[in-house]
Amino acid sequence: MAIRKDTIAHRLEAVRRAMRARGIGRLVLTSEANVSYLTGFAGSDSWALITGRKSYLLTDSRYTEQAGKECPVCSIVERTGSLAELVGKLASGAAARPAVEDGVSVAAFAAIRRCVGARPRAVGGLVEQIRRTKDRSEIGMIRASAALAADALAQTLAKVRTGMTEGELAGLLDLEMRRRGATTSFETIVAFGANGSRPHHRPGRRKLRANDTILIDFGARLNGYCSDMTRCFAVGKASREWARAFDVVERAQAAAMAAIADGVRVEQVDAAARRVIADSGLPVYGHGTGHGIGLEIHETPFIKPGTDEVLRAGDVVTVEPGVYVPGRMGIRIEDDVLVTADGCRLLTGGCGHRPNRIG
Amino acid sequence: MAIRKDTIAHRLEAVRRAMRARGIGRLVLTSEANVSYLTGFAGSDSWALITGRKSYLLTDSRYTEQAGKECPVCSIVERTGSLAELVGKLASGAAARPAVEDGVSVAAFAAIRRCVGARPRAVGGLVEQIRRTKDRSEIGMIRASAALAADALAQTLAKVRTGMTEGELAGLLDLEMRRRGATTSFETIVAFGANGSRPHHRPGRRKLRANDTILIDFGARLNGYCSDMTRCFAVGKASREWARAFDVVERAQAAAMAAIADGVRVEQVDAAARRVIADSGLPVYGHGTGHGIGLEIHETPFIKPGTDEVLRAGDVVTVEPGVYVPGRMGIRIEDDVLVTADGCRLLTGGCGHRPNRIG
Repeated sequence: MAIRKDTIAHRLEAVRRAMRARGIGRLVLTSEANVSYLTGFAGSDSWALITGRKSYLLTDSRYTEQAGKECPVCSIVERTGSLAELVGKLASGAAARPAVEDGVSVAAFAAIRRCVGARPRAVGGLVEQIRRTKDRSEIGMIRASAALAADALAQTLAKVRTGMTEGELAGLLDLEMRRRGATTSFETIVAFGANGSRPHHRPGRRKLRANDTILIDFGARLNGYCSDMTRCFAVGKASREWARAFDVVERAQAAAMAAIADGVRVEQVDAAARRVIADSGLPVYGHGTGHGIGLEIHETPFIKPGTDEVLRAGDVVTVEPGVYVPGRMGIRIEDDVLVTADGCRLLTGGCGHRPNRIG
Repeated sequence: MAIRKDTIAHRLEAVRRAMRARGIGRLVLTSEANVSYLTGFAGSDSWALITGRKSYLLTDSRYTEQAGKECPVCSIVERTGSLAELVGKLASGAAARPAVEDGVSVAAFAAIRRCVGARPRAVGGLVEQIRRTKDRSEIGMIRASAALAADALAQTLAKVRTGMTEGELAGLLDLEMRRRGATTSFETIVAFGANGSRPHHRPGRRKLRANDTILIDFGARLNGYCSDMTRCFAVGKASREWARAFDVVERAQAAAMAAIADGVRVEQVDAAARRVIADSGLPVYGHGTGHGIGLEIHETPFIKPGTDEVLRAGDVVTVEPGVYVPGRMGIRIEDDVLVTADGCRLLTGGCGHRPNRIG
């Protein structure tokens, strides 16, 4: 889906305002998501250069044809040498040294320095702080991505059988997302039984048994936008331990969601979820309580302790507390919400949390 | 599959030798593949610290359980703050400033600098130059990964029908790899008809038609090791233009493979393939002719023009020339080979190039 010219123009205006505020005359974008946000380009291995009046996509012959279709505003420059060399050429004759995003590698930064003939300024978060606030169209795309993912999951659950491996279940779910025109927003996690205690478990050859449990953490990517959700299911009869932990995690998630609103410190949201779990006597999870989603599966703001970060209306974040008991079980419940002036709105739905029983 | 203790010990020895040669007392590994190579850890978001006598995996609570199972040699250190803070703690009291891999971001490098209290030395390619030479067990794993991928493709081809979308075909292939216990080594590319002219096409809603063509670029990841292959098929009767281009690409690949041997400059291999295509009057491809594969889907050495790089026995590389005619068609044929003293050995097989006809 090609991006609208006026959307790009609007975003460029915001970025140029931020550039002026920081005294930056030309900015080299190296983050794939930031390049996509400001040019419309959906490929990879490409950078962008934003000046006060112009914008350039720096790409190579593999992508020239695609870029011509996707980028309504910027000039497309095909490189033959390295990206750094191209930056050097485009920046030559400019008075001010360029600024470069600080997510770039030390090696690439050094190459730019050599090609430009001066040490660039490293800047962080400039585009990310603009990108975190989603407009109506972006919210619609995340919602569509989440609806597609939920629909794919519902279809997949109908095929779950004992004897199936984690890997096969993950593959079936990915296929259903593909059938609906999406890809995955990250490598699908499917964990049976005690494997759920590893939050980033890789689906393997473990087979589903009778009276087993399933944790599925997955998301779709549709038109570049990610959704991210985790669902847990008991096959047959759930153990009392599992059912109790599930209930606690569900309440922890509700507590976090109830704390969310424009202007609230992320620490408060994080603490609200952890408090419910700590009070229950179950082990408190070691990962964050949530993260922003959009063109990236993990983006600002991050909901975790030890930060001054404050939520803003327009942020779209996950809320995903969990309970992990190594060797026994793991439960996580994750949904995506839009932060509003006085609360939040759920973007994920379908495949409701209850009954969370299959088979 | 847990890695053997003596394999890790052997690799650490080689890395420490390279560290001593460069005057490095302690090295921070930030590359996921390098961390995995030297610790056995298969997760992400983790660094390693190698000193003259010890090695540490720096990870977080999501991975502690997994790391305990996967890492036979190193000490596992769970962080509560940032990775940079942990490096600062472990490096405190050390006489020499640490070296850090230059693939790390400028932002992370700056954080390490703050936490260590001195500017680290940035080093590139140290572990990669050791990792490029595959041992017998690694070659076996790449071969197994390639065999699995070919088997999955054969199974998938039997299900190809007109009316199927690119995305669905990609999903079916991924599912077959999952069913065999692997994941994908990168996002599967399926391109029908003229979409094949974009080397990095994303599978979409385009439906397969009668007398269409299919390009599939994909690979499996098994026990961490990647395979990578591209196959092109004509559904029904191929056009003369397509059949001729296919033949040229096949000859270009054969010419490149014939040029490969220990000690040969990559430029020669690259030129051998391009010459066949240029001589045929077809457009010469803009991408490289090949790249190393292993724990990463793209790793050193890269077979491309403009470099002094020389192939070495033990390298495992792809060979993948192509012909692209925007708006009309694209063909690429890609296989993986092991470089030997006097030639190369094919690691990919099955789903042979011929007849390359389905339906």
